[in-house]
Amino acid sequence: MQHLLKMSDLSETEIMTILEDAQEYKNGAGWAPDQKFFVANLFFEPSTRTRFSFEVAEKKLGLEVLNFEAHSSSVQKGETLYDTVKTLEAIGAQACVIRHSQDHYFDELLENVQIPILNAGDGCGHHPTQSLLDLMTIYEEFGRFDGLTVSIHGDIRHSRVARSNAETLKRLGANVMFAGPKEWMDPFNTSGMITDTDQAIKKSDVVMLLRIQHERHDQEKKTDQYLEAYGLTKERAKLMKPRAIIMHPAPVNRGVEIENSLVECGKSRIFKQVQNGVFVRMAVLKRAFEKRGEAACPSLLKTV
Amino acid sequence: MQHLLKMSDLSETEIMTILEDAQEYKNGAGWAPDQKFFVANLFFEPSTRTRFSFEVAEKKLGLEVLNFEAHSSSVQKGETLYDTVKTLEAIGAQACVIRHSQDHYFDELLENVQIPILNAGDGCGHHPTQSLLDLMTIYEEFGRFDGLTVSIHGDIRHSRVARSNAETLKRLGANVMFAGPKEWMDPFNTSGMITDTDQAIKKSDVVMLLRIQHERHDQEKKTDQYLEAYGLTKERAKLMKPRAIIMHPAPVNRGVEIENSLVECGKSRIFKQVQNGVFVRMAVLKRAFEKRGEAACPSLLKTV
Amino acid sequence: MQHLLKMSDLSETEIMTILEDAQEYKNGAGWAPDQKFFVANLFFEPSTRTRFSFEVAEKKLGLEVLNFEAHSSSVQKGETLYDTVKTLEAIGAQACVIRHSQDHYFDELLENVQIPILNAGDGCGHHPTQSLLDLMTIYEEFGRFDGLTVSIHGDIRHSRVARSNAETLKRLGANVMFAGPKEWMDPFNTSGMITDTDQAIKKSDVVMLLRIQHERHDQEKKTDQYLEAYGLTKERAKLMKPRAIIMHPAPVNRGVEIENSLVECGKSRIFKQVQNGVFVRMAVLKRAFEKRGEAACPSLLKTV
Repeated sequence: MQHLLKMSDLSETEIMTILEDAQEYKNGAGWAPDQKFFVANLFFEPSTRTRFSFEVAEKKLGLEVLNFEAHSSSVQKGETLYDTVKTLEAIGAQACVIRHSQDHYFDELLENVQIPILNAGDGCGHHPTQSLLDLMTIYEEFGRFDGLTVSIHGDIRHSRVARSNAETLKRLGANVMFAGPKEWMDPFNTSGMITDTDQAIKKSDVVMLLRIQHERHDQEKKTDQYLEAYGLTKERAKLMKPRAIIMHPAPVNRGVEIENSLVECGKSRIFKQVQNGVFVRMAVLKRAFEKRGEAACPSLLKTV
Repeated sequence: MQHLLKMSDLSETEIMTILEDAQEYKNGAGWAPDQKFFVANLFFEPSTRTRFSFEVAEKKLGLEVLNFEAHSSSVQKGETLYDTVKTLEAIGAQACVIRHSQDHYFDELLENVQIPILNAGDGCGHHPTQSLLDLMTIYEEFGRFDGLTVSIHGDIRHSRVARSNAETLKRLGANVMFAGPKEWMDPFNTSGMITDTDQAIKKSDVVMLLRIQHERHDQEKKTDQYLEAYGLTKERAKLMKPRAIIMHPAPVNRGVEIENSLVECGKSRIFKQVQNGVFVRMAVLKRAFEKRGEAACPSLLKTV
Repeated sequence: MQHLLKMSDLSETEIMTILEDAQEYKNGAGWAPDQKFFVANLFFEPSTRTRFSFEVAEKKLGLEVLNFEAHSSSVQKGETLYDTVKTLEAIGAQACVIRHSQDHYFDELLENVQIPILNAGDGCGHHPTQSLLDLMTIYEEFGRFDGLTVSIHGDIRHSRVARSNAETLKRLGANVMFAGPKEWMDPFNTSGMITDTDQAIKKSDVVMLLRIQHERHDQEKKTDQYLEAYGLTKERAKLMKPRAIIMHPAPVNRGVEIENSLVECGKSRIFKQVQNGVFVRMAVLKRAFEKRGEAACPSLLKTV
């Protein structure tokens, strides 16, 4: 069984295998299973891109999709996540994709659940498929991680993406920088240097903006001043290296983290990240099923 | 790319082609695509018949369906309609069916969205597939529009259906009349004559009742008096021509726009309209995909 | 047309046919229809296991699934259940699975609806597929009903399951006992003897626990004292016969009806019940379609 819980569980080799599989799927590889496989998507928090990206990935692989929604389920009667997952397993789900607001929700599942769990985001903790799609987008652009400079801008402390990405990029040989308001820097971070916004942008191959998560902040930030102070303005975009790219996990707060007109500019890979998400998720679904009996799924990479 | 936004965008020839294709689908034509096509349904307002009619149409055509719901999406985090549609496009949606409360929501989408938009209702504005299913039902009954008299009864001013239908029917050669409370007549209407309820019913080949949209009216109308004053009572039904038919876009407020026992009477085509909606939507989906590269979808009308 | 409304509508022969078909599906039988069949699932109350169990059953049978949700439908505009079902029928649904809070909701549908209704729970009334999966689980274990002793523990009065199960088990030759708080016993029950909890557990082949339905009780029961007084504690479990089994319709209130550690113990069939639910629902779907024209569905039990 092959869970996907957090980036730190994956070796560099495993990461590169996932990126290569994802690229093969992007190039047209597919899978047409000769029996029905059921995957349940459990989203306990709102989501557009992660949820539909998984659903499209599943359907492209020919899997049967069960869309679980907390508000119309027995969670309303007090059923726990553990009992919900065990129930879906008994009903026939062969993998569960889960987003949940609780950090490390999966810890309570691992002992008794017999099907792979794919983490689609836990609290402020991890979001491995987001990290993987970011890595795919960078690798597609530069063909390497070694020696690249990636700056991460914004709310590092509350970002699932920031932590996983920083650690993983460092492992893969990239140089990581952080920029943004001091109170949003992660004091326990050891993956990269904290620096000034303009300096970070000048030196970066990848300018990775984070979303200001209004829904997680108690006090409303003065977002109208954020763009000028820490965001990517047209002026700052001019400081970027010629081949450098702009990334953002989205949804973008247009005019806050980034000036509106830059979201779809030539340097932006923001919608390409979304596109790559589907292929990365196909690759991790393949990985989840692969180890569950080679015989049942002889090849998930058969071109169709 | 072939959007379907409003009836006035369609020529008479295009309308007749859609109606003919719909009839072919009703007669058993189908499509079995040799690759996966994804359609996203975005309903920002409650709907039963339009939503499921599109879903059945899509599945009959062998398309993969993504059901987007605003309440469990990143719209909750403030994501705009434009960014939502661009995201679904990046994920792989090849067409979007959208119902939204904002009039002309599609105006902001047209410049940059690269996939066809099928309007499933915008505010009080347009609802072209409802118009088309009404037209199909009339054409199936009479084999023509020319010279027919169609009376539209009720809340003309707030009805998406009334405006499109009146204009289109007039273009196709029908004679249109309006009846109902004076304050609900559309002062800018030029498509037909405003007349007395009984007179309209006597002269009509098609008595088209509109729904009183309680959810759009600020003050509650005295619905108990509406039936007697403007609705289709048993007495008024006796005034109808022998071959005349009753239509209503539904949901019906039974006992308000129409006497309960008439909803499923011999003259009523109300559930037939719902049935025809599926075939009309198959035809407009075909039209949407057809122009996106003839090679990819050689024939959407291949009998299966 | 073959509705499935309540257990008392089914003869003993019909029940045994359903259980045998379910067992065949569990052994690997399937169906691959040569045309598309649409089933609509209408859940007006929260549900995890019944809803997804039906969805998996439908998809294993190759049916097309329409998931209707009240909160995003025209029910919000006041549309009745009758008009909703008639609409789905007109759109192309060939069967409707319905859970609704109103007892006997189906009475108003039977006269005019032309497609089979499968009752997935009505108010405090009936829940025939739950009864059937309970029966399947018992039959799989013991190979008979005749002479078995089944005790039902807990909130008999408010339980859909308790009434149907007691009546049906008695019809099939089992001996039924009830235990639990006096105020929760059904005064009109004639299917079995009311007895003391310990006595019931000692004598039973099947200890069938019911869920305390907090959401249906006005006053909060002292659930912390329930386990000791009426629930299945470790001590009481030691009183069970060697081959006796534990059942519960779930969701389980762990530590209330049953001690937490017993939920997945060797005697427990709680998740096996969930598993069997899929196969029972395949069998009742087969039954629903079977009588709608033998020609259209030559064999729903064709091994795939």
